[in-house]
Amino acid sequence: MFITFEGGEGAGKTTILRLLHEELENQGYEVLATREPGGIRISEKIRHLILDPDHKEMDARTEALLYAAARRQHLVEKVIPALEEGKIVLCDRFVDSSLVYQGVGRGIGISEVMAINEFAIENWMPDVTLFFDITPERGLARINANDEREKNRLDLENIDFHRKVYEAYLELTARYPDRVERIDADQPLCEVREEVRQAIRRHTDH
Amino acid sequence: MFITFEGGEGAGKTTILRLLHEELENQGYEVLATREPGGIRISEKIRHLILDPDHKEMDARTEALLYAAARRQHLVEKVIPALEEGKIVLCDRFVDSSLVYQGVGRGIGISEVMAINEFAIENWMPDVTLFFDITPERGLARINANDEREKNRLDLENIDFHRKVYEAYLELTARYPDRVERIDADQPLCEVREEVRQAIRRHTDH
Repeated sequence: MFITFEGGEGAGKTTILRLLHEELENQGYEVLATREPGGIRISEKIRHLILDPDHKEMDARTEALLYAAARRQHLVEKVIPALEEGKIVLCDRFVDSSLVYQGVGRGIGISEVMAINEFAIENWMPDVTLFFDITPERGLARINANDEREKNRLDLENIDFHRKVYEAYLELTARYPDRVERIDADQPLCEVREEVRQAIRRHTDH
Repeated sequence: MFITFEGGEGAGKTTILRLLHEELENQGYEVLATREPGGIRISEKIRHLILDPDHKEMDARTEALLYAAARRQHLVEKVIPALEEGKIVLCDRFVDSSLVYQGVGRGIGISEVMAINEFAIENWMPDVTLFFDITPERGLARINANDEREKNRLDLENIDFHRKVYEAYLELTARYPDRVERIDADQPLCEVREEVRQAIRRHTDH
């Protein structure tokens, strides 16, 4: 089972992923928790290029192709082997992040970004995608309250960009109702966890 | 006018490109001669990743996406501005190299590699593509006779790979007869130059 975690900055998906990982392992499942570039050295190097704040001249389509390349290598070296061993894979951001950040945020178009991602992932789409729903204003306020988290090039984009991304996530939720589960991320942690449990249960029952 | 130079290793296209550049400038044209990554720093960094002989784990689709990314950035920063200023652009390798090396050489498929390249170049296809036709055996013998040329990861592929690439070029020549001009590269330099002159003349008359 391949589960991906999506949402804007500050939605808390990384925290929940860690908790879910622990919980599933306690239940006896074998779990791989990862996020691109995930220690895969080629993907790490690509990601380093993308996020360098000095690369202001980077074209939006170059960025989208680089994300797809990093995704491919991480998928081939880490995700597919784990799925083939029967593990549950939890991945912090995947294809949908590109659809919203590059497709909508950068204005390239969802279908065009989907085309290069289909090339990258072939048929390895997630079984469930958890979308952690929080408005960009609330999400960014959370980031700014946390001094430890280093800001990268995307965090520094203005609020209009984050708003476009947020609306794109809502659009994807409507577009892929069988795959994308909306989780209300603007509530206490234990309630978010409970929503996640229920969402996953709905998909394992089928 | 956008002219690209294609062919296997050792076909002599780089030499001819330099001579044609000189000749066109002497005729009063403004010319940009380039090759990916062409001094564009993001493209240079991407190319460095691709050609590192140590990256043996690189997946073929990762490689194809990285080539497309480097191509995009070089196109946007260097080729398009020159074409918009009315210059003739001579480019050593472009989309067709990916179609043959990744699409056929690596076995991904021409149409799939074309899809990500269409994303990268949008509608900036070359007006003319000169294919320098020489068998891989003859081409590689030329490279091996030249000690000064440093060998990269692609040069080190075996002869079967280069043969597949060569046959793919012949296939592209048949597939795009209006754009791709076949030049017999296995003859004295002055005759190759003359064939190139005639090929370009055919395209400027239209």
